[in-house]
Amino acid sequence: MSITNIKGNVRAFAPATVANVGCAFDILGFALEQPRDEVVARFTTEAGLSISAVHGDNGRLPHDPQKNTASVAAQAFLTHIGERRGIALEVFKGLPLGSGLGSSAASAVAGVLAVNALFGSPLAKEDLLPFALAGEKVACGSAHADNAAPALFGGFVLIRSAQPLDLIKIAAPEELRCVVVHPHIEVKTEDARRLLQRQITLADAVKQWGNIGGLIAGLYRADYELIGRSLEDGIIEPQRKLLVPGFDAVKRAALDAGALGCSLSGSGPAIFALFAGDQQVQDAAAAMRAAFKSVAIESSSIISRIACDGGGVLA
Amino acid sequence: MSITNIKGNVRAFAPATVANVGCAFDILGFALEQPRDEVVARFTTEAGLSISAVHGDNGRLPHDPQKNTASVAAQAFLTHIGERRGIALEVFKGLPLGSGLGSSAASAVAGVLAVNALFGSPLAKEDLLPFALAGEKVACGSAHADNAAPALFGGFVLIRSAQPLDLIKIAAPEELRCVVVHPHIEVKTEDARRLLQRQITLADAVKQWGNIGGLIAGLYRADYELIGRSLEDGIIEPQRKLLVPGFDAVKRAALDAGALGCSLSGSGPAIFALFAGDQQVQDAAAAMRAAFKSVAIESSSIISRIACDGGGVLA
Repeated sequence: MSITNIKGNVRAFAPATVANVGCAFDILGFALEQPRDEVVARFTTEAGLSISAVHGDNGRLPHDPQKNTASVAAQAFLTHIGERRGIALEVFKGLPLGSGLGSSAASAVAGVLAVNALFGSPLAKEDLLPFALAGEKVACGSAHADNAAPALFGGFVLIRSAQPLDLIKIAAPEELRCVVVHPHIEVKTEDARRLLQRQITLADAVKQWGNIGGLIAGLYRADYELIGRSLEDGIIEPQRKLLVPGFDAVKRAALDAGALGCSLSGSGPAIFALFAGDQQVQDAAAAMRAAFKSVAIESSSIISRIACDGGGVLA
Repeated sequence: MSITNIKGNVRAFAPATVANVGCAFDILGFALEQPRDEVVARFTTEAGLSISAVHGDNGRLPHDPQKNTASVAAQAFLTHIGERRGIALEVFKGLPLGSGLGSSAASAVAGVLAVNALFGSPLAKEDLLPFALAGEKVACGSAHADNAAPALFGGFVLIRSAQPLDLIKIAAPEELRCVVVHPHIEVKTEDARRLLQRQITLADAVKQWGNIGGLIAGLYRADYELIGRSLEDGIIEPQRKLLVPGFDAVKRAALDAGALGCSLSGSGPAIFALFAGDQQVQDAAAAMRAAFKSVAIESSSIISRIACDGGGVLA
């Protein structure tokens, strides 16, 4: 591989993502415009990859390059292109940790985007996902691509098949808006996954199949009502909501405020709600936070469009 | 309800349909252009609904108007509009019985279309489905709408929800072609349903969810390769194929002949395969029939486009 156009330093970003979109457990995710993680990559005189600093994590993330998702993703890429020059990464966390918004995926995607750009982008964006997944795996124990793929590519990304990976990007309908309310409690992805029943009834599965079909059709038709009706999840949400005190009240508040639908973001504890247009999002976010407050849980809210393009390199 | 424009007699038709489209068990069906059932409705001097004749069924279908799907569907409609005039139905079966091509649904749809047209179409096509389902229920013990809805509306129809009914029509990509090979054996829908495991693993369900998403996305994108990859069914087909001797050989023959994908039509025994364009369909149909022949089963084949509009009234 010939590598030209090496840069002095590069700042890349990747956005928050919502995975397990209602009925679409493990097969769909979408990207928000905000918040974002950023990673700066620069050459150093010491050989190998290091992490010079992590900001915005309250000291919780590892600085060991073999344990931080951003550096593990970057290292997988550097190994692939055969690079051993000294590089330092500086990580700026914009995403809350352990919230269900794809924090690990965002850092991993930003990390690999930064080092790819540092070497003049020898690989196309389409080819970077495996490295991001390697990074995410360090943090989560497994990598499902339903956060990393939308963080990299933007829009909605359907994971038709995880093994071998087969992704379909679906553009978000233009008026779609997302409110995410993130309670200040933490749910570990491993715990949320262990909790799930390994068997489901065929009847429940068929209901879910119909909703998945309806959700994908709704996205292609920009049919907001159909998207809303189809978000219903009768399998995962009833099990996982037990980990999030106040879930039912928050969901009720979102729907009463005009949400098309509402469910857990990723494995929680964040809760997302989708809307058609901007009109109700401010009130909905306030009502959702008030519902958490009523069970004595502090929370933060995010209001965002769906990102068209996913992560990238800042000028 | 005011009923005007009563006609002397009317001939209506409804086409064969393929339900349980690969991964999309119980939630998707599509209409073929051929074969079709036809029903002629005409006024008689005797009060009430009767069946004057059934053609093409080798004497197997009931003439009792309370047991024949065409007349039960018609009667449900007539009761709804409050009509008791004497009407005779003549049923022309173009579809093979018990084949998995929606024979009951086609007769039911043609029956209700005929009597609606006989009274000058007091109801819109969109409102006729419940009557057709009442007819189908007599024959099958249950009605899932995945045959009747595409027989009535054409194209692909997604059953997002069966209860309450929520249907989404999806236009078929223009080049899509279907080969159906119908072995001369019979599988009862009830048997095929009883055979199914009531529980499935979450892991299998997630694979199926991805394929359903891929299939619906493939239809909207007219992405034939994606449609093909997504047809894969790891849950129902492995169980039901046991009722159809030679299934694996027939499927292999279809795929070797260039099919995008191949699975059971409805609950079988017919096997459908989808193709992009006309080029391979003749050879594929021959190869699929030869595969049945190799296990000493005679069969017939159908080659058809996907019908745009479903059933209707003949001039």
